[in-house]
Amino acid sequence: MSAAAPARDLSRFAINQITTPSLDLRAAVEMYARARVGGIGVWMQYLEGMSGAAARHLIRDAGLFVPCLCTSAWVNLTDKAAYGAALDENRRRLDLAADIGAATLVVVPGGLATGETDIAAARCRVEDALGELLPHARATGVALGLEPLHPMYAAERSCLNTFAHCLDLVERLGAGTGIVADVYHCWWDADFAAGLRRAGPERILSFHLCDWLTPTRDVYQDRGMVGDGVIDIAFYRQVLDEIGYDGPFEVEIFSKLDWWLRDPQETTSISVERCAPFVAPRQVRL
Amino acid sequence: MSAAAPARDLSRFAINQITTPSLDLRAAVEMYARARVGGIGVWMQYLEGMSGAAARHLIRDAGLFVPCLCTSAWVNLTDKAAYGAALDENRRRLDLAADIGAATLVVVPGGLATGETDIAAARCRVEDALGELLPHARATGVALGLEPLHPMYAAERSCLNTFAHCLDLVERLGAGTGIVADVYHCWWDADFAAGLRRAGPERILSFHLCDWLTPTRDVYQDRGMVGDGVIDIAFYRQVLDEIGYDGPFEVEIFSKLDWWLRDPQETTSISVERCAPFVAPRQVRL
Repeated sequence: MSAAAPARDLSRFAINQITTPSLDLRAAVEMYARARVGGIGVWMQYLEGMSGAAARHLIRDAGLFVPCLCTSAWVNLTDKAAYGAALDENRRRLDLAADIGAATLVVVPGGLATGETDIAAARCRVEDALGELLPHARATGVALGLEPLHPMYAAERSCLNTFAHCLDLVERLGAGTGIVADVYHCWWDADFAAGLRRAGPERILSFHLCDWLTPTRDVYQDRGMVGDGVIDIAFYRQVLDEIGYDGPFEVEIFSKLDWWLRDPQETTSISVERCAPFVAPRQVRL
Repeated sequence: MSAAAPARDLSRFAINQITTPSLDLRAAVEMYARARVGGIGVWMQYLEGMSGAAARHLIRDAGLFVPCLCTSAWVNLTDKAAYGAALDENRRRLDLAADIGAATLVVVPGGLATGETDIAAARCRVEDALGELLPHARATGVALGLEPLHPMYAAERSCLNTFAHCLDLVERLGAGTGIVADVYHCWWDADFAAGLRRAGPERILSFHLCDWLTPTRDVYQDRGMVGDGVIDIAFYRQVLDEIGYDGPFEVEIFSKLDWWLRDPQETTSISVERCAPFVAPRQVRL
C-alpha cells in the first residue's frame, strides 16, 4: 500500500436491491460484488423461482452479506382468518430469511385495515402480531427489524412511524427484535438522534441511506440519491459512531422518476461514490 | 321550533377560502354566508388591492367571523437582511390581520433555508423569530397561531411538524401564541390527542378539518373532503369536548385534483354537509 489514500473499505456497506430494480438477484449480486460493495439487501420478489439455499450460495459465493430481507407481509387485517394467514406467511418469510443468510426481516406491517380509522387499534394489533411472531423469529435466529416509516405512509404502508415508537416496541418485545433506521423516514424528527442514542448499537440492526428531495414529486417513489437532498447524513454517522454502532449501512432508493430509469451500472457506481464517505469502518480510539 | 331535528348551528364553523380558490373574497363571503356558515378563513392573496378595513366591513357585514389570516411570511432565512425583511413583513401581516378582524395569524415559518441541512438550527431560528414578533402580536391583539405541518413538509414549508413541538414553543413563548391544529397534519401522531389535552382549550386557537386520502396522489394538494379519508374526526371532536374547547372549526382543503376543479357552490355545500356533524356547539352538561 502506498502512502496515498487507503483503498476504500466498503465492508459495512450494502446496496438494497430495490435501488436497481431491473436486475434479477444474480445480476444484482454480480454488479454489487464488482463494485466491491460488502452486502446486498434482498427483496422477496427476487427470490421467486429460486430456493433459499440457492440464493444463499449465489450471494455468499460472491462474498456478500445480507443485512436484511424485505419485507414482512402486512398483518394489519381485522379478518381473523386473513390475520392468521399473514402470520403464517411471516413465519415462512422468517424461514426464508434464515435460508438466504439474512440477519433481519424488515417489518413493514401495513397501515390501517380496510375501512379502519382507529390508528391506535392498528398499532396495538401490530404489537400483538409481533409478539406472536417472536418465538419463531428467535427460533430461526432472524431478527424482526422494525422500520419506522415516514408518517406519510401511516395510512397505507405502516403504522410504525417514529423511531421512538419502534424503540418502545423493541423494549417491550425484547430479544429477537431491533430497529432498521432509514434517514429518509426519520430525518425530520427532532427526536431521531436521541432515539439512536437511547437504542444503543445492539438494537440498531441496519442503517439505511437515502436523501429527501425538494420538491418531492411523488409520495412513494421519489427518494433521492445520497447527496442530492437535504438530509445531514454526516451528522447521523457521527451519532452512530458516538454510540459505537458497528452494523451495516445500506443504500435504498425508490426512484421511479430518476434512478430506476438509469442504467443500473450507473446507479450502482454513483451509489458507491456518494455513500463511501459515510460507510467506513468505525475508527476505534485506543 | 318543532320537535323535529333542530336547525343546524354552524356558528363555530368557518370555511377556509383556499377550499374554493377560484372565488375572490367578496364571492367567497357571499357564498359562505348564504350557506349559513359562521366564518371565513382568509388568505393574503385575496386581500390584494383592498384595504384591511374594506375587507373587514365586507366580512362583518355578511355576519362572518375570521378565525385566521393565512399565513405568516417565511422566516427561515440565513441572510440577515432577508430575515429582517421577513420579520417586518410579518409585522405588516399582523397589522393586516388586526385590520380585517382576524383573531390569529397562522404561522407557517418555512422549512430549511436554501442549502441548509441542519433542521435543529432551522427550528431554533423559527423560535427566535417568533420571540421577535411576539411584542407586535401582543400589541395588535392578533395571536401567533403555530400550525404543526405534516412531516412531509419539513424541508420546504415548515419545520414545525408535531403538535408537541408547537405546544412546547407556545409554553415557552407565552401569551399571544397558540396552536392551530389540523387533523390532516396530525392524525398519524400517536401523541396528538394527548397534545390536545395538554394544550387545553385556551391554547387551541382553531381546529382544521380535512381528510387523508388513500392513496394520496400529490404531496401538496391532494387533501380529502371530510368523510372521504381515514381520519377519525369524531374521536378528535370528542377529545375537544372533553377538554372544553369552544373555539372555531374550519374546513381547509387543498385539492387541485378534485375539489378545486368543481363548482365552488358544490364544494361549499358538500363541505357544510360533511362537517356539520363535527362542528356543533358544545353541549354543556349542567
